[in-house]
Amino acid sequence: MKKIDGNAISREIIEELKIDVANLEGPKPCVAFIRVGEDPASVVYVNKKKKIAEEIGIESRLILLDDKISESDLICEVDRLNNDSSVHGFLIQTPLPNHINDTIILNRVNPEKDIDGFSYANLGRLCQENPDSFIACTPAGIIEILQRTNVKTEGKHVVIIGRSLIVGKPCSLLFLRRHLMGNATVTVCHSKTADLASITKQADILIAAIGKPNFVTVDMVKKNAVIIDVGINRIKDDSKKSGYRLVGDVDFLNVEPVVDKITPVPGGVGPMTVAMLMSNTVKAYKNSRN
Amino acid sequence: MKKIDGNAISREIIEELKIDVANLEGPKPCVAFIRVGEDPASVVYVNKKKKIAEEIGIESRLILLDDKISESDLICEVDRLNNDSSVHGFLIQTPLPNHINDTIILNRVNPEKDIDGFSYANLGRLCQENPDSFIACTPAGIIEILQRTNVKTEGKHVVIIGRSLIVGKPCSLLFLRRHLMGNATVTVCHSKTADLASITKQADILIAAIGKPNFVTVDMVKKNAVIIDVGINRIKDDSKKSGYRLVGDVDFLNVEPVVDKITPVPGGVGPMTVAMLMSNTVKAYKNSRN
Repeated sequence: MKKIDGNAISREIIEELKIDVANLEGPKPCVAFIRVGEDPASVVYVNKKKKIAEEIGIESRLILLDDKISESDLICEVDRLNNDSSVHGFLIQTPLPNHINDTIILNRVNPEKDIDGFSYANLGRLCQENPDSFIACTPAGIIEILQRTNVKTEGKHVVIIGRSLIVGKPCSLLFLRRHLMGNATVTVCHSKTADLASITKQADILIAAIGKPNFVTVDMVKKNAVIIDVGINRIKDDSKKSGYRLVGDVDFLNVEPVVDKITPVPGGVGPMTVAMLMSNTVKAYKNSRN
Repeated sequence: MKKIDGNAISREIIEELKIDVANLEGPKPCVAFIRVGEDPASVVYVNKKKKIAEEIGIESRLILLDDKISESDLICEVDRLNNDSSVHGFLIQTPLPNHINDTIILNRVNPEKDIDGFSYANLGRLCQENPDSFIACTPAGIIEILQRTNVKTEGKHVVIIGRSLIVGKPCSLLFLRRHLMGNATVTVCHSKTADLASITKQADILIAAIGKPNFVTVDMVKKNAVIIDVGINRIKDDSKKSGYRLVGDVDFLNVEPVVDKITPVPGGVGPMTVAMLMSNTVKAYKNSRN
């Protein structure tokens, strides 16, 4: 299959986790979600995560906070979860209100419970190739997609467009690991890159994480490449009830015919993120038992 | 000048630090060095660092430990310096004896005193582009060489050969920063890279950190590139009293004529390392005062 079915792969992982959790002895794993304010996308994401956790058999807690909360009060809430031994992993849903420094909050999470993998501690451990580190869910999901569709990475040229902390940088560190799903030559491109197409055309595996609809066009890809589209962009579409539809960073319609494999949007990388979050939760639980 | 004079640049930094330290009020900065055993190269390196520290006006302490020391006793020594408020920065000279896990020891160093920048905390902060992080001395020295020889990095293609924690990975994170000396497109190559020459030939700035004498040949470089040679390799040379001479990872003799700038070995990146270590020590001192 040329079009990678992220929904099916995500479902596979969720089913595996169900069995894994059912076989655990003692109290069940417990995940907590902090949501600050009522950002509509955050409401949807957190509810989705909670629902999947429950399906897997992971206990879940939702901490709803007013968007006027001070940074120091939010830090107290994070510390409360850090110190609560019945909670194995938790996350703070972003975006946070403007008066709060995201980095300070994300770095405050106990690294052993940091299932989003955004703290400096887990980023540093990823640099050190520490297998106990928590890897951010989108990059971890990309690796999982490649592994489960039998794409080899060793010696391949992986080109990543985007240098974010959430996708680009952890992806580059993952593909460089001395690891079955690493050992790749890695190039990171971004808004300052000169002659981007000349570089993306060299990619055996191209990862687009820029947030620009249909940015990667067919003249930018190599024949038979593997394309991973991380973008989730809304574009106007009057034919839809909502008035918009979701598209990725890749011009799927024209790129798909020339490549070996490609993830669609929606239904590609997106569904993997929740699955990997749950996988990180179970890992945090198991680590806490050792 | 085509040949970059690392000794002169390093001397420039040391003179600047002397003035900086002379102008500090209160107790002088203090650096400590832990050396385990009598590895001849370690003896030379630590003595060199101590001498330069003293020249700058930085107080220095040398902690010599037997190479039979247990890992837990070494951890105690690290903790003693972590908790000694009169020591602003320190390092543990590597290599450590085989029975000791380097990563555990290097991660034990208080991140605020980690002037070598090898702890996961400082690697993670570098990922997050935190300006207070301590950057490993060789990568920091490379950036300093480029800056002081007016080499711009923004939009340039930087190719790094080698993915070590000490050079390759921190270099890639540095060149990706949203920063005057960052904003480059970065490719990391290594032993698993296919068709290495086709990639190195694209480099506007090529960094060789592989540890193989004369590995980078003239057919692997682009005309007018800037070449940074991090390698320090001993090769047999009967014409020398010592029986060997030092060469870099780059075939200097043949590469030099076609490039714009190149660092020699010795006298290139090497001398920068001690200068950047001292710069990190003064930074740790200043951070401790704020």
